[in-house]
Amino acid sequence: MAATLLALFKRPEGGDDALDEFMQRYLDEHMPLIEMVPGLRSSVVERVSQHYAGDDIVVVTRMTFDDGAALDAGMASDEMRVAGRNLREIAPGILTLLALDEPVS
Amino acid sequence: MAATLLALFKRPEGGDDALDEFMQRYLDEHMPLIEMVPGLRSSVVERVSQHYAGDDIVVVTRMTFDDGAALDAGMASDEMRVAGRNLREIAPGILTLLALDEPVS
Repeated sequence: MAATLLALFKRPEGGDDALDEFMQRYLDEHMPLIEMVPGLRSSVVERVSQHYAGDDIVVVTRMTFDDGAALDAGMASDEMRVAGRNLREIAPGILTLLALDEPVS
Repeated sequence: MAATLLALFKRPEGGDDALDEFMQRYLDEHMPLIEMVPGLRSSVVERVSQHYAGDDIVVVTRMTFDDGAALDAGMASDEMRVAGRNLREIAPGILTLLALDEPVS
């Protein structure tokens, strides 16, 4: 059963320039590091086009692993540590990171 | 191009009993109302199995429409109004609701 890692990013402080810089570094620096994580099967980055309620999230990234064990191993890998260090540099304090179960319905 | 509506729910106050009650009413009452929204192609409800960073989100639901116009029409529909009223009753203050663009990468 595939396992999913979901990353949600709130709008960085500093207006449109800060958002543009975050997006560029996220796509150019961070995602290539994520793609080196062992066991990662695929990743999809989506930008928020409309905000209807709640927190001001601007980017949602879904990373898929073969199963829960592969996700755990990926999270514990050196490659993920490097990616995490990069993310703390380019996106301090705006990340929510979750693993998701198989769909309920 | 398909358009996605993403609903994120934070943990309700009141401990495990409140979470169980929310989940039951969300699946038994709310999702049947969502499935009546015109233009909705599919919906997937996923529970959070692990929390690594950031906000304490417990459920993530992805709703797919044929395109942005279908999503806008669905959001403006009477059926969505009914579903929204139900959600304010069963999940006050815990919802973030977003529309997502096509994947960036």
